[in-house]
Amino acid sequence: MKLELLVTGDEILRGTIADTNSPYLLARLEERGLRAERVVSVGDVREDFLAAIRAASERADACVVSGGLGPTEDDLTVDVASELLGVKPAVHTPSLDRLRARWAERRRNEPMPANAERMARAPEGAEVILNPAGVAPAFALTLGRCWFVFLPGVPKEYRALVDDVVLPRLSARAGVSPTHARVLRLFGPAESQVQERLEGFSQAHPSLRVGYRPTYPEIHISLVAPTADALAAAEAEARARLGPWVYGADADRFPAVVGAALRERRETLAVGESCTGGLIAKLVTDVAGSSDYFLSGAVVYANAAKQALLSVPEELLARHGAVSAEVALALAHGARGAAGATWGIGVTGIAGPGGGTPEKPVGLVHLAVAGASGYERAVERRFFGDRGEVRLVAAYSALDLLRKALR
Amino acid sequence: MKLELLVTGDEILRGTIADTNSPYLLARLEERGLRAERVVSVGDVREDFLAAIRAASERADACVVSGGLGPTEDDLTVDVASELLGVKPAVHTPSLDRLRARWAERRRNEPMPANAERMARAPEGAEVILNPAGVAPAFALTLGRCWFVFLPGVPKEYRALVDDVVLPRLSARAGVSPTHARVLRLFGPAESQVQERLEGFSQAHPSLRVGYRPTYPEIHISLVAPTADALAAAEAEARARLGPWVYGADADRFPAVVGAALRERRETLAVGESCTGGLIAKLVTDVAGSSDYFLSGAVVYANAAKQALLSVPEELLARHGAVSAEVALALAHGARGAAGATWGIGVTGIAGPGGGTPEKPVGLVHLAVAGASGYERAVERRFFGDRGEVRLVAAYSALDLLRKALR
Repeated sequence: MKLELLVTGDEILRGTIADTNSPYLLARLEERGLRAERVVSVGDVREDFLAAIRAASERADACVVSGGLGPTEDDLTVDVASELLGVKPAVHTPSLDRLRARWAERRRNEPMPANAERMARAPEGAEVILNPAGVAPAFALTLGRCWFVFLPGVPKEYRALVDDVVLPRLSARAGVSPTHARVLRLFGPAESQVQERLEGFSQAHPSLRVGYRPTYPEIHISLVAPTADALAAAEAEARARLGPWVYGADADRFPAVVGAALRERRETLAVGESCTGGLIAKLVTDVAGSSDYFLSGAVVYANAAKQALLSVPEELLARHGAVSAEVALALAHGARGAAGATWGIGVTGIAGPGGGTPEKPVGLVHLAVAGASGYERAVERRFFGDRGEVRLVAAYSALDLLRKALR
Repeated sequence: MKLELLVTGDEILRGTIADTNSPYLLARLEERGLRAERVVSVGDVREDFLAAIRAASERADACVVSGGLGPTEDDLTVDVASELLGVKPAVHTPSLDRLRARWAERRRNEPMPANAERMARAPEGAEVILNPAGVAPAFALTLGRCWFVFLPGVPKEYRALVDDVVLPRLSARAGVSPTHARVLRLFGPAESQVQERLEGFSQAHPSLRVGYRPTYPEIHISLVAPTADALAAAEAEARARLGPWVYGADADRFPAVVGAALRERRETLAVGESCTGGLIAKLVTDVAGSSDYFLSGAVVYANAAKQALLSVPEELLARHGAVSAEVALALAHGARGAAGATWGIGVTGIAGPGGGTPEKPVGLVHLAVAGASGYERAVERRFFGDRGEVRLVAAYSALDLLRKALR
């Protein structure tokens, strides 16, 4: 099956926004063993858009078009598609009803402008597909040899329609069976370590498609199987092989997984961070509801602050230096003690680009966790990358120490 | 001038990476009054790439091609371009010399693999353009009526070549005079406020092109003028009209600008943050060298932590509530006092989505700055958006209070 993507929108051609929809669809296709041959973007220019659709109808078996389904005169998609089909645009009553209901709910006291109705149209005779995440309906039609599906460009709506409609339809058209998919999310290993652990795994599951996607500092592994049973078997084996590197799946996010473990145990966290500069606290508190378990963080850049906020003894700093296992542990204990938290995290290191020495190079980080009954653990790591990368992987690694302590 | 962009790379068509190069070039073009009509992406497939170049040569006056200039067999660009020109690829000696020097410098003890030399080739007879930021040279040639320039896909190299070579050449080909450009970077106003202040500004500078680009929570205004003098005059007037909303220009970044002002005055900063959860400290310490002026941060989510780390009186919390001007000021003074810093920042608010009340709704944030000689300032703000947006604009607003205090 020859497949293409066509994107329309002046804001894309002007560089005002980047097209994040196409990478999303392309990645989901790849997981299913499908690949587009071409992605074309044009502005909201009638002739360019017409020419691009015509060219796709001559070249491709299927084409996913996005954008131009809004209410303004610049939104040309319904008109252009109707013109190519030789039909008129028609109002789709269920979509218009939903549009009216939504308007009444959100702007009780304003009349709905007439042009809003433009969003509820589709070419006469096209298959209309309700939009699960918005108002403008999607629609599908055939031109020449090519099956076209037209989606709104709003990312939330685009993604919902891709997942619910486009992927199953394209899989069917390509003769690929409907699939069951899971993304395992890992933190900890290098890509080569993952591949080593999964040696022979693909061969043991011939109906499975396995994809690797490093998303720094995580690695995501997609498993796509023809049946729910095949997926469950493959997932179980992958989890057994990969062990605690797998922190979650699908919509799970790393800081939220650590937070959920704390909430479940009704335990609390405080952090004392130096080189990560507030990033650990920021990641933990990005999660709504994190005040249930996060008590406080101390960003102790200066040595005097390490003493003043977290009672790190001056003598310890002088003897071992600020970047040392001893100080990481003192930060973890100090954070825990100052906040009266169940757990304390301590991090100290050299994020770079300056500040490295032969003994303590850029990227050297000491991480520590302290808990109840004298529990403590410290590790020394050497990370590579720029300042932002060192900080991010150090923050993840510190949270990962806690995640493992909570297991 | 009909202009197109052509991008090649399997990693793009697989959705592994998003194309960030095209939005960069498209935005720079827009600033100069140029616009591409079409962006086409194809994989590393010889026939698709050949067909896409041929189509562009028939349609466009100029085409910027990127990707496929690396050392591997998948990197087809030099071979495909040579085939279309009817010539052989030729090694570009200055690029090969640079490649060898670079290899010797970085991997002293390993011989350079033979295929690395592929990166130093260009089609015979093409105009070769040295790569200022890497090894693989760019090259330009004419096919049919269309001028093609071929760039490496590595973003750093792509951007350097766009700025140094592609924009001046395309401006010249389009009959647009060479331009002088500046981007003013603003924080504070809404877009409508900026437009109000700049009423009549464009008309007063008829040779100027003005572009607005909201980049949450900042607004960037691009000024492009035909001469350095015209740009200087326009910039001076824009700065006078916009006043302290303009925090910097071009490569300036907001947290670094605030940091530079502290460094210049040899002053220091400590922060006490609640709803921003470490984000202020993170933004400040994202900047390399921030340990020169950043002493410490306290992320005091729990009320007990506000008391323990920053000595916020229990009585104050009980009387005014944690989200109050009084507590924001106490956090600023407490942070400053605990660290012995010149300046203290305090932030407390409700980031949402939960935790709002009719009196203290989601988005309500109190910001404060405390300085020497009893200086203090507190403001109450109501922000809109999701949790991430409220936190980001609150962190910026707190740093902006300090920026204005430092002026």
